[in-house]
Amino acid sequence: MPEPLTLHPDRFFDPDPAIRRAARAIYEDTATLPIVSPHGHVDPALLAENQPFPEPTALLLTPDHYLFRMLYSQGIDFDALGIPRQGPEGDGQQANADPRAVWRLFCAHYHLFAGTPSRAWLDYELHDLFGVRVLPSAETADALYDQVAERLADDAFRPRALFDRFGIEVLCTTDAAADDLRHHAAIREDNAAGTWGGAVRPCFRPDAVMRIAHPNWRAEIEALEAASGIAIGSYADFVRALEDRRAFFKAMGAFATDHAVVVPRTGWAANVEALFVRALRDEATADDQAAFEAHFLMEMARMSVEDGLVMQLHAGSLRDHNRAVYDRYGLDKGADMPVTTEWTRNLQPLLNAFGNDPRFRLVAFTLDESTYARELAPIAGHYPALVLGPAWWFHDSIEGMLRFRERTTETAGFYNTAGFNDDTRAFCSIPARHDLARRIDATYLGRLVARHQVSLGEARRIGRALAYDLPRRAYRLAEAEAPFSSLA
Amino acid sequence: MPEPLTLHPDRFFDPDPAIRRAARAIYEDTATLPIVSPHGHVDPALLAENQPFPEPTALLLTPDHYLFRMLYSQGIDFDALGIPRQGPEGDGQQANADPRAVWRLFCAHYHLFAGTPSRAWLDYELHDLFGVRVLPSAETADALYDQVAERLADDAFRPRALFDRFGIEVLCTTDAAADDLRHHAAIREDNAAGTWGGAVRPCFRPDAVMRIAHPNWRAEIEALEAASGIAIGSYADFVRALEDRRAFFKAMGAFATDHAVVVPRTGWAANVEALFVRALRDEATADDQAAFEAHFLMEMARMSVEDGLVMQLHAGSLRDHNRAVYDRYGLDKGADMPVTTEWTRNLQPLLNAFGNDPRFRLVAFTLDESTYARELAPIAGHYPALVLGPAWWFHDSIEGMLRFRERTTETAGFYNTAGFNDDTRAFCSIPARHDLARRIDATYLGRLVARHQVSLGEARRIGRALAYDLPRRAYRLAEAEAPFSSLA
Amino acid sequence: MPEPLTLHPDRFFDPDPAIRRAARAIYEDTATLPIVSPHGHVDPALLAENQPFPEPTALLLTPDHYLFRMLYSQGIDFDALGIPRQGPEGDGQQANADPRAVWRLFCAHYHLFAGTPSRAWLDYELHDLFGVRVLPSAETADALYDQVAERLADDAFRPRALFDRFGIEVLCTTDAAADDLRHHAAIREDNAAGTWGGAVRPCFRPDAVMRIAHPNWRAEIEALEAASGIAIGSYADFVRALEDRRAFFKAMGAFATDHAVVVPRTGWAANVEALFVRALRDEATADDQAAFEAHFLMEMARMSVEDGLVMQLHAGSLRDHNRAVYDRYGLDKGADMPVTTEWTRNLQPLLNAFGNDPRFRLVAFTLDESTYARELAPIAGHYPALVLGPAWWFHDSIEGMLRFRERTTETAGFYNTAGFNDDTRAFCSIPARHDLARRIDATYLGRLVARHQVSLGEARRIGRALAYDLPRRAYRLAEAEAPFSSLA
Repeated sequence: MPEPLTLHPDRFFDPDPAIRRAARAIYEDTATLPIVSPHGHVDPALLAENQPFPEPTALLLTPDHYLFRMLYSQGIDFDALGIPRQGPEGDGQQANADPRAVWRLFCAHYHLFAGTPSRAWLDYELHDLFGVRVLPSAETADALYDQVAERLADDAFRPRALFDRFGIEVLCTTDAAADDLRHHAAIREDNAAGTWGGAVRPCFRPDAVMRIAHPNWRAEIEALEAASGIAIGSYADFVRALEDRRAFFKAMGAFATDHAVVVPRTGWAANVEALFVRALRDEATADDQAAFEAHFLMEMARMSVEDGLVMQLHAGSLRDHNRAVYDRYGLDKGADMPVTTEWTRNLQPLLNAFGNDPRFRLVAFTLDESTYARELAPIAGHYPALVLGPAWWFHDSIEGMLRFRERTTETAGFYNTAGFNDDTRAFCSIPARHDLARRIDATYLGRLVARHQVSLGEARRIGRALAYDLPRRAYRLAEAEAPFSSLA
Repeated sequence: MPEPLTLHPDRFFDPDPAIRRAARAIYEDTATLPIVSPHGHVDPALLAENQPFPEPTALLLTPDHYLFRMLYSQGIDFDALGIPRQGPEGDGQQANADPRAVWRLFCAHYHLFAGTPSRAWLDYELHDLFGVRVLPSAETADALYDQVAERLADDAFRPRALFDRFGIEVLCTTDAAADDLRHHAAIREDNAAGTWGGAVRPCFRPDAVMRIAHPNWRAEIEALEAASGIAIGSYADFVRALEDRRAFFKAMGAFATDHAVVVPRTGWAANVEALFVRALRDEATADDQAAFEAHFLMEMARMSVEDGLVMQLHAGSLRDHNRAVYDRYGLDKGADMPVTTEWTRNLQPLLNAFGNDPRFRLVAFTLDESTYARELAPIAGHYPALVLGPAWWFHDSIEGMLRFRERTTETAGFYNTAGFNDDTRAFCSIPARHDLARRIDATYLGRLVARHQVSLGEARRIGRALAYDLPRRAYRLAEAEAPFSSLA
Repeated sequence: MPEPLTLHPDRFFDPDPAIRRAARAIYEDTATLPIVSPHGHVDPALLAENQPFPEPTALLLTPDHYLFRMLYSQGIDFDALGIPRQGPEGDGQQANADPRAVWRLFCAHYHLFAGTPSRAWLDYELHDLFGVRVLPSAETADALYDQVAERLADDAFRPRALFDRFGIEVLCTTDAAADDLRHHAAIREDNAAGTWGGAVRPCFRPDAVMRIAHPNWRAEIEALEAASGIAIGSYADFVRALEDRRAFFKAMGAFATDHAVVVPRTGWAANVEALFVRALRDEATADDQAAFEAHFLMEMARMSVEDGLVMQLHAGSLRDHNRAVYDRYGLDKGADMPVTTEWTRNLQPLLNAFGNDPRFRLVAFTLDESTYARELAPIAGHYPALVLGPAWWFHDSIEGMLRFRERTTETAGFYNTAGFNDDTRAFCSIPARHDLARRIDATYLGRLVARHQVSLGEARRIGRALAYDLPRRAYRLAEAEAPFSSLA
């Protein structure tokens, strides 16, 4: 007999009655607030084209490397999971092209996800979005597949309908420097025509043009030249081209940039022109790139001061750790691995140059939790420019978010944090992720109430700030609007 | 309508009924024990001169960089906070000289401190010391200012009266190597005359004479020459001068020394005379200083073995991270940032030389919590000389102290820790800080009782040891006295 | 009046009623499962010879460096504890040869262990094994000594009787590469003869032959030559000798190897023959050894792929930190100290070479908890070959095991962990250690139930997996048998 799938109304709250009582009251205030999603990886084509989702596997499994990394770790290979071999040495084929067979494999291993955030998100999506009431398992796989597939055929399950139903106030994508943003343009046309009101915004992510020692760098520069119409023969040209693209992104609604580095080193390079010329000659070394990246981040901060785009910095992920998987299946297959990250010394040049400037805003994300209390909270609790991004990636989880609050709040407070962002490419998981985050903030605040550190009234104000006002303020969505009571 | 300010009798205890019940019983035993404050930064002039505190802002805000760092992080500049521009490039002026205006700014932003230890300390001080019964806010600011100011005019609020009311058994200050300790002399005269009985002790902190590459080093050496009456032309002279000053401090009641380093490297330098001579010629490099500091710590440990002064070592704070703030406003403006700290290898030379010697006592403090369980607890749980200082600075907080106990107790036990010290320059916060620490130790011990690891009787004995006996033992206050029952 | 020694049936569970209720139900299922002990340090002679234990001190104190390290840290020297001076500069004598005097010293300091796992294990052993009902103290020491001594005289307290009473399904020892395994042979003979059924297995630990710069290396190589019958004049000979020994260990029942390194660096050394020849000439440097160790781990992994022995890797312990203690008393005196450990980059060569191979199994252990969530859980949650060993050594404790689950489960799940192993040389502590681990897993799972993340039914299945099935699967004990329901 299949086990039931239920969503307990108090799920994820601390079971202590005093904490739970307070958490419930705090969560009640935030549960129905609009979703602000200032950082994520949803494909804008989805919302521009508004096609029905094909079938359950393509919707729920294929875009979610959290899922297939776990299955892979237990000996289920990527071919069986229908992952196309799109790596540089892959043949482009998909070994298992039967989505129902992949779905069965997934359901038969649902127990692997016990205790993980994937399980929490999936339970929510299956239950609330698709009306599923039994736990996925080998036995229930086919019936669930049919049930989800049937729903997907309904127009109410098209992307824009879901966007509206999810209560998304704004959704940001992540886009390369040379991207033409045509899907965003299409959406903006529909916005202007009044055919759809959803706010979807691009985010400027120029990582590829920063990595001067990468084999693809020249191609990326050519794309940047094409997009900006600026011939790039020098670092000065490069800067102009970037300024041009930032202006374009801003005109298309962007309010932020995003930068991913392994080491968040910052600092002007005295010889930046020479570095750039070496790169144009395909002679840049790994050390050259490191110096260039440090300089590039300074330049981006300088531009942020000028154009007001919020700068996001994600550090500490060593990409494509598993060479064989990368070669065959390509990027984003769950094989990116975190490394230790040093912030105090690395950010000092950037913060000394721009960290006291009220025009500058930097949102920092780390995979190295040992830096929460040791480095990031002290920095965020002093420098006006820096706010802490939420618990990121592997730490976007119950315990991960609790650790984030436990280790940052006492030094940085709540108001130097940026609220939640979902950072997801799994569109249907967005409400589940925000709901989980709101519940965890509610239970953390409930603990403060139960320990008599703050009153319930204060905790409710902070809860609303974390769920809604702080991401809007961190990403400057609220600047042209009236201030919110919870921030007063 | 203003929100009430209340102090719940069970505040900071875990809300679980079994833990709370035990915590209450443990705390009952410790709440009224005398305060032992073996490490802090109160200005001894305060207690030597015993002048009334001027007004609320000068008493509560201006000496507390925890407060203005948070306000600064939210865009309120130091000028608005009335911080004098006393940095090397400052003009010495105070832009906002109206303490009531600063007070209003602080009260209007009281919500920023929710969840921080500053909030817990302030609530206690305002409520218990000044009788405040409403939360600070823009609306209540003026009334609170007047209320606190009125109290301060009362002789019962002079420093010595507060010292006595706080139940301070002994209070240590922190004093430079060349300090003449005249305020301590004045207090000792009053002690001898029987006009005041308060025990205030100096602590020998020779950091400035250790930093041989610092521009001020020569001036510091000259001050040391003047204070010791020893002309310093060689490292041997330097050692004699230090021994002279330690003897003087000890004669003036000191029982400890204090040393702050970024990296706790230790080890005899083979070429120490050459390093010292280079320093005298203003030619010492950063590497020279690093080697000299490592040697200096060995020398200090060697002297501690001989004169019995307890050696304190604080590591891992990178001072004055924000250059612009330092240049304009000077030291201690909330811009010191922690860095990773390695203890296992760095302390090995010192511990191998002195760590087995029963005459030696080293109290270690870290800002890198990842070393609690990995390095410091294993070291403290083996070497007889080393005890763990309490959760320090950013970690002197509810969660911070819980993490300290969670990560050190299982390997080092309770009896290799030094109890609490408040490390504060905010005199009026001393009882609040000790009360918070006692409550957290009580709730941690209550957890052990509720999990049936120790009996309530044992937990109460340990609670008293942590609050009173262990700091006395760690700092050798108890050596001439009878042993305490809780240590038996 | 002596304090009672009791074992509460709910000990170590979270006191929250909802968690405790679930924890109890989960623990009920696991409490009586057989003990699988795939990694430990019990002397096989104990079980081969089955002599009565001599007396309480030799049984409970002398083999347990957790105990005497704590006593030493509080100023009780090793001579007083009767530790023989067996270090390279020791005289081989035992200063205090009176075991009862040592026992008294231990009992008088029992309070030092409050809050440590040693206390939890000792309480269990004294209570359940020896029927003790009062807490050890100076007053109770003699009576307890007599009580334990009396029990030990009973045949029911001989090693094999205890092994059977403990419900040990299999116990692994740790044995040098050149060991003749004669005690294992003796046990196997008894197994074959039907005189005793206990399963005791060797584990291949070739660390000594890997450390090419160590003064003893040549002697170790000679022992390896003697054991394998292969003259070792080149690296190729060395490899053949190791393969020979692995085959012997496997034939004697081994199912795993074990490797301890300070830094888990891996990677083929291009010049391995040259390194080996330098070592044979006694010219290997520390750098040579580091490169050789990295290569050696690759070679061991390669052999594991071929012979199916599970590879265990323990990293991050700096042995014999206290030189004076080592010189006088020798190895394993509680002076091994952890250091930071980097896994992501260090393991990459090994994982890229073998981590995707279904024939390979690597169990990794760390003393650097900051790597649980940052490095090890992401790696274990992706690579099929790697599973996480349990919280190790200083972290084999209540809080330590909770941190392990809190930081690994959300990314790696439960099924990429290896269950518990006791890693002990204290034979009588084995049931206490497994019981504690099962209780902590039960309370962690109870928390998931109380937070409505999993049902109680799921949690019970996971509990059984952690206690029994997962160690069997990780160490490949179950391969020839039917799969267990809890893993389905």
